[in-house]
Amino acid sequence: MTKPIIFLQREFRDEFIEKIQILAPDYQIKTELTEDDLPSVEISVGWPKKFSERLLSSDQLKWVQSISAGVDYLPLNDFSKREVLLSNGSGIHALSISEHIIGVLLGYYRGLNESVKKQEQKVWAQESIHYDQLSGKNLLVVGTGHIGQQLSKSIHSLGVNVYGINTTGHPAEGFVETYSIKNMAKIVPEMDIVVGILPGTHETYHIFNSDIFGKMKKTGIFINVGRGDTVHTKELISALEEKQFAFAALDVFEEEPLPESNPLWTFDNVLITPHISGMTVDFQNKFMKIFLANLKSYLSDRELSVNQVELTRGY
Amino acid sequence: MTKPIIFLQREFRDEFIEKIQILAPDYQIKTELTEDDLPSVEISVGWPKKFSERLLSSDQLKWVQSISAGVDYLPLNDFSKREVLLSNGSGIHALSISEHIIGVLLGYYRGLNESVKKQEQKVWAQESIHYDQLSGKNLLVVGTGHIGQQLSKSIHSLGVNVYGINTTGHPAEGFVETYSIKNMAKIVPEMDIVVGILPGTHETYHIFNSDIFGKMKKTGIFINVGRGDTVHTKELISALEEKQFAFAALDVFEEEPLPESNPLWTFDNVLITPHISGMTVDFQNKFMKIFLANLKSYLSDRELSVNQVELTRGY
Repeated sequence: MTKPIIFLQREFRDEFIEKIQILAPDYQIKTELTEDDLPSVEISVGWPKKFSERLLSSDQLKWVQSISAGVDYLPLNDFSKREVLLSNGSGIHALSISEHIIGVLLGYYRGLNESVKKQEQKVWAQESIHYDQLSGKNLLVVGTGHIGQQLSKSIHSLGVNVYGINTTGHPAEGFVETYSIKNMAKIVPEMDIVVGILPGTHETYHIFNSDIFGKMKKTGIFINVGRGDTVHTKELISALEEKQFAFAALDVFEEEPLPESNPLWTFDNVLITPHISGMTVDFQNKFMKIFLANLKSYLSDRELSVNQVELTRGY
Repeated sequence: MTKPIIFLQREFRDEFIEKIQILAPDYQIKTELTEDDLPSVEISVGWPKKFSERLLSSDQLKWVQSISAGVDYLPLNDFSKREVLLSNGSGIHALSISEHIIGVLLGYYRGLNESVKKQEQKVWAQESIHYDQLSGKNLLVVGTGHIGQQLSKSIHSLGVNVYGINTTGHPAEGFVETYSIKNMAKIVPEMDIVVGILPGTHETYHIFNSDIFGKMKKTGIFINVGRGDTVHTKELISALEEKQFAFAALDVFEEEPLPESNPLWTFDNVLITPHISGMTVDFQNKFMKIFLANLKSYLSDRELSVNQVELTRGY
């Protein structure tokens, strides 16, 4: 009988392949799949879209370990029907994204973005550069998961007061106060900074829209590092044109790469980054901590010990 | 007899003028000086260069309160001979400069500076953008005064290991280890980041030179927010050309504004900011805390309680 397959969509270092093989001696590890392999794939790290239908039609598939934190690109309903287990990479990118957000804020408040532009013109713009102070600001983290908690911890130590939004308003570590997502518009007027770190679900689609932008402080900052479609792009553009708030930093978009024709590229009060906030040094180590823990618990009792996704909820 | 004068080189809000007048009812407060006023100036907040000689030749001048932290632009020898007291603005800018430095580091490590440039070309540069992590890095603060201590406190909480350099290597709060300035070259090879926050004195002139740059890591970062002439500009340019280290962020220069002809403007691996790191929101409040404390102690017993400068030392 053919050995069942653990498929790895990404290359990992030999040390990790060895660890997997020691834990799971009865499995074959493959980083490329042929047609013949598909019926034997039991565990898939990442999801090879071109084989989606074939994998879903096989009884052998039992567990998908997503490499990313977001899983909205996966066939969640099919996994649910087929009782395929799903886990994600949540937490791996938390430190990177937290550093990205702090960098974006200081780049704006301390006039660094402006300095980069002026340097290209060799202009010494001491008099005209806008400056402000991060310390003392109120920041709203929309999404109090791994990333939100890491951000809260780091930026609180820089003197920032951190508030949180989650589904029900349940308390979360490191937040002065948390509110439910349906109350977001009420708290936004008190905030200097609003940071979106939401997964893409039915509930979060276009949740950052004119209702929210219209309630922000004129001096406010909006940052999105969650999913692109949590933002109503057209309404964001209108809000920026009307200067309803001061600055937006966007790392994710409804359409990626952001089309050259999109006006967001040209706004002075916008920073575009090309979906880089989560890029993580030493990614393999961090990811393998999650996968190997899950592999152990999966092999012993068909359960996932870390980062299991509730399929009906979507995160 | 003419009342002695407290001269303010900068405009301050009425609330502060009133506080000064209440503390010092026997003094006139002036924000502009005529020739006739000069012999009556006893306290000068800031230093009006055009009247330098006349003020120094008057017996009435007793105390100069510098607005900046650095005092190297003042006639320290003359103050010393004439026994004029001197205090500086050290500490006011500590939070701003600390935020500037953290912003500069994250702007580099998280690819934000590069993103600003790519945005101007409407280029989605996800694949090419360099990224790294601030957390875990070793940072050397050269100058463990107010600013260095604030930086140490803030950036330590972001996971950075902070080492310090000062005159004698005496311990300072918040540093893993401190070394004397004569041992700087020995510790530099261990550091990912070297931050200059030195005052301009004989001892610090051109202290950042080819000896230091040559010992930095290839991936190292050099930041200067102290005095421009602590850096040997020509040797810095050579080191950058030869890529002896990876990135420099310069806020101060031997000649300011930085001349358009200076090659530093054009380096990809340099961020030029126009001496803005110390720009401080709510400056007046912060400055007046120092000045009013000193005014009280000066009036009661001719002593300065805060930030007195040792004239022979220069800081």
